Amino acid sequence: MASRPDAPPLADLERELTRLLRRARVTSGAIAAEVHPDLDSSSYTVLITVLDLQQVLPAGVRAADVGEQLRLHKSTMSRNITVLEQLGLLERVPSPDDARARLLHITPTGRHQLTTAIAARRARIADALGKWSGEDTDHLARLLQRLNDDLD
Amino acid sequence: MASRPDAPPLADLERELTRLLRRARVTSGAIAAEVHPDLDSSSYTVLITVLDLQQVLPAGVRAADVGEQLRLHKSTMSRNITVLEQLGLLERVPSPDDARARLLHITPTGRHQLTTAIAARRARIADALGKWSGEDTDHLARLLQRLNDDLD
Repeated sequence: MASRPDAPPLADLERELTRLLRRARVTSGAIAAEVHPDLDSSSYTVLITVLDLQQVLPAGVRAADVGEQLRLHKSTMSRNITVLEQLGLLERVPSPDDARARLLHITPTGRHQLTTAIAARRARIADALGKWSGEDTDHLARLLQRLNDDLD
Repeated sequence: MASRPDAPPLADLERELTRLLRRARVTSGAIAAEVHPDLDSSSYTVLITVLDLQQVLPAGVRAADVGEQLRLHKSTMSRNITVLEQLGLLERVPSPDDARARLLHITPTGRHQLTTAIAARRARIADALGKWSGEDTDHLARLLQRLNDDLD
């Protein structure tokens, strides 16, 4: 698709980024259902954010960390955590540093279900890219890396 | 970044897509706060999905359409809609086709706040891309378009 004079490349890029993020919103509900049939996308987002934050907060992830990152109301966070506990995907354990504080731990079941759902998502992406040349795949990866770096 | 033999381009691409989607989860909370200081990311996702669905459902968007698309529990949907109504961003109006049914309408305030927040997001992307050549911007737009088409 060549850019038309009235549609600069930036507008084209914004449109495609919007398409990608819109799909991500929709597929996040489907992936949630793969993790657990009773998991909704709001609680799924909390679960995947606990997984993300474990990388940068090795001392443990508190509910407040997740709520702050996602900017979720405290009541929404509490309800999501209750759902995740009831489904056996997440548990709250006492913090070793502060007996009054609780840390969020993904259960082995939660980790297994998340890993399986993420692998299925990867397989779908790999399938969609089945006809791409290695050169195009590599080029997109490098341009996205640059975009991510510049947005950081 | 050249792909190493043990890291095929597909793995690089998956990593960068994951980075992009992770940022989208985090920034969606910040954008929600720009739309209204008391708006959380869960209700924001409902609002932006109403806006998306208006494009494909010209007869009107029902709460069930949004809930189905996002795979949100009915109780979560109800609470999000109540929040959006209380903040003056969304209203429920009777359907012209079915007096018992309600359609979701974004209020003029909601539309104005969403438009402003989306424009600010676009400005941040444009700023991040300030040093990119038109050629690179165009190339990324075309590769993302192909990815979106292939994922559809």
